Amino acid sequence: MRKIGILGGGQLGRMMLQQAVNYPVETWVMENDEQCPSASLCHRFVKGDIRDREAVIAFGRQVDALTIEIENVSLEALQVLESEGIRVFPNTKALGIIKNKILQKEYYRANNIPTSAFRVLSDRSALQASGVSLPAVQKLATGGYDGRGVMILRRPEDLASGFDAPSVLEEMVEIERELAIIVAIDERGGQAVFPPVEMAFNPEFNLLDYQLCPPDLPRATLWKAEAVAQSVARNLGSPGLFAVELFVDRSGEVLVNETAPRVHNSGHHSIEGNFCSQFDMLLRIVLGYPLGDADIILPSAMINLVGADGYEGEPVYEGLEDVMAMERTFVHIYGKRETRPGRKMGHVTVLANDRHTLIHQAERIRETMKVKGTIKK
Amino acid sequence: MRKIGILGGGQLGRMMLQQAVNYPVETWVMENDEQCPSASLCHRFVKGDIRDREAVIAFGRQVDALTIEIENVSLEALQVLESEGIRVFPNTKALGIIKNKILQKEYYRANNIPTSAFRVLSDRSALQASGVSLPAVQKLATGGYDGRGVMILRRPEDLASGFDAPSVLEEMVEIERELAIIVAIDERGGQAVFPPVEMAFNPEFNLLDYQLCPPDLPRATLWKAEAVAQSVARNLGSPGLFAVELFVDRSGEVLVNETAPRVHNSGHHSIEGNFCSQFDMLLRIVLGYPLGDADIILPSAMINLVGADGYEGEPVYEGLEDVMAMERTFVHIYGKRETRPGRKMGHVTVLANDRHTLIHQAERIRETMKVKGTIKK
Repeated sequence: MRKIGILGGGQLGRMMLQQAVNYPVETWVMENDEQCPSASLCHRFVKGDIRDREAVIAFGRQVDALTIEIENVSLEALQVLESEGIRVFPNTKALGIIKNKILQKEYYRANNIPTSAFRVLSDRSALQASGVSLPAVQKLATGGYDGRGVMILRRPEDLASGFDAPSVLEEMVEIERELAIIVAIDERGGQAVFPPVEMAFNPEFNLLDYQLCPPDLPRATLWKAEAVAQSVARNLGSPGLFAVELFVDRSGEVLVNETAPRVHNSGHHSIEGNFCSQFDMLLRIVLGYPLGDADIILPSAMINLVGADGYEGEPVYEGLEDVMAMERTFVHIYGKRETRPGRKMGHVTVLANDRHTLIHQAERIRETMKVKGTIKK
Repeated sequence: MRKIGILGGGQLGRMMLQQAVNYPVETWVMENDEQCPSASLCHRFVKGDIRDREAVIAFGRQVDALTIEIENVSLEALQVLESEGIRVFPNTKALGIIKNKILQKEYYRANNIPTSAFRVLSDRSALQASGVSLPAVQKLATGGYDGRGVMILRRPEDLASGFDAPSVLEEMVEIERELAIIVAIDERGGQAVFPPVEMAFNPEFNLLDYQLCPPDLPRATLWKAEAVAQSVARNLGSPGLFAVELFVDRSGEVLVNETAPRVHNSGHHSIEGNFCSQFDMLLRIVLGYPLGDADIILPSAMINLVGADGYEGEPVYEGLEDVMAMERTFVHIYGKRETRPGRKMGHVTVLANDRHTLIHQAERIRETMKVKGTIKK
């Protein structure tokens, strides 16, 4: 039986393992936290730091193929493993580009992929000397995740508290809509593209509020977005799954915001909404199986369940039963032992034929369900 | 976090655990085989014999609720646990009736549920003295499963090799169609009924060949079948999931063949074909959540993948990739370490809007995929 390893044991790995139940495969997971969401769902759990070169090499040598659920892994270890013939998804060339926001932006520029204007900064003094026109967005080259490592600079005095590390300084786009498109590429170069999703963000946590699939946008805009997303994924020259986040600006132009070389929050709806989910698609690629059918079964909305403000400790899923009683809703709880404000604790997908119902249901779900905790702050 | 226990670690438990990933629940499994399909997917795996009274009592005391994936468990142990306040699905009254084919048939008779004419036999001499009109079907009172414990008596000389144990002797029904209907009942008495499925059997192994949902039968027949199935489940007076297998005879009459008080092969299509699968539905009941929506998303066919004749040892899934490349097919491999002729090794569901396509695809899948093994006999 083939062995695949996942670096990281969070909800993305968990949902990949849930799908892997369908295939003849031995699953290995590496993660520092023995109580992580994936620990009880794999054949072998290895406790270890996925950023530790030696630990990742030792782990990777025991499997046939490796994938990641977070970019923050030891790239050097993966390069060693790749040179030894272990298949790595995405490959280290693509991961190296995407892992570093400077290289990622330069990659877009070099490949004529539309993205916001930017410059590269070495440290805070470079930021202060930049004479940038505000507002602007500063993104750390490495280490950002879920809104961390991103700062919006609005006033001149904000520059003094900007990141003091290598970063990208981007012109602020006047965003009309945010989209995400997942592109899957197999080892033979075959390609499957998931229909776009439209995202609404919660400004407080910079976390996805809910998303809709398909988006309500002109066909021409969606075609443009799909072409851009395919160009991002194809030019990386790597098999794997690529989630491309896009802005549509006020003039209808499509710009790439950023890319994740892995399964992604923007694809969760595909578990129920599409014939082949993003998790199934990546597994098929890693296992060398044919690509699946990314078509929509029914339009969907997906609502993230994040830890409510003011609570920590063991999660309490208030309203869970009310949501489960709603029509055509699908609850996914990630099994995290502790909640924190803004932490992704689960998600709910709802299916319906029309957009109006989807929005109504998404709002109801968001109002009905709260992830509180046993410790009130 | 609530703890639920599953007695038995086969594919039914495996698919229940796959669904349980979505809910805040700690899963426990008891099974003698440490390499069973469920072992790597639960929080706690307990090696033990589910027919062993003491072992099951010790296991059950550690969880809040118990369910089964096979009837052949220690009923006495469950009675003790139930008396101690552990919730058992189905309850032991219902399980006691169904576990014994004599009591099951008598239950149908006592509740005016249509079923084939029968008599109860104590042993082989009673069979030989019965003066039964042939053909007839003899079923062992206990221990039958997947076609074992069932014998078709065609000629007078067959009586001499009939079962020499307590059994039911049934009049052979002239079967026009075979249906199955799953009825779910929660602890508050709420009820959800899955749309009927129509089954085609492989006479060689007495295993399901493929099934179609919904069946192509007159509405009136389906209503009758649903009414009968609901009557079977309701009169048992137990929460749980009940798979009622039915015959439609040449005159259009509906007769109950037998009932399983658990998730069942006839409900596998519901994973992709229905908004709420049978596994999700049972979990909702066991966890005290609202019942789900059993409605069909799209019509489906489900094909069992059984071990091919002449092969044993480690399974080899011939044609797997060809089937995965077919449109709208969903492969489920059960992760069994060894194949045997006729052993259930997986299943494939295919979705399509029209029956013609479903049948065509089911035939293609059946022809394309074979579960062979590393040992050729």
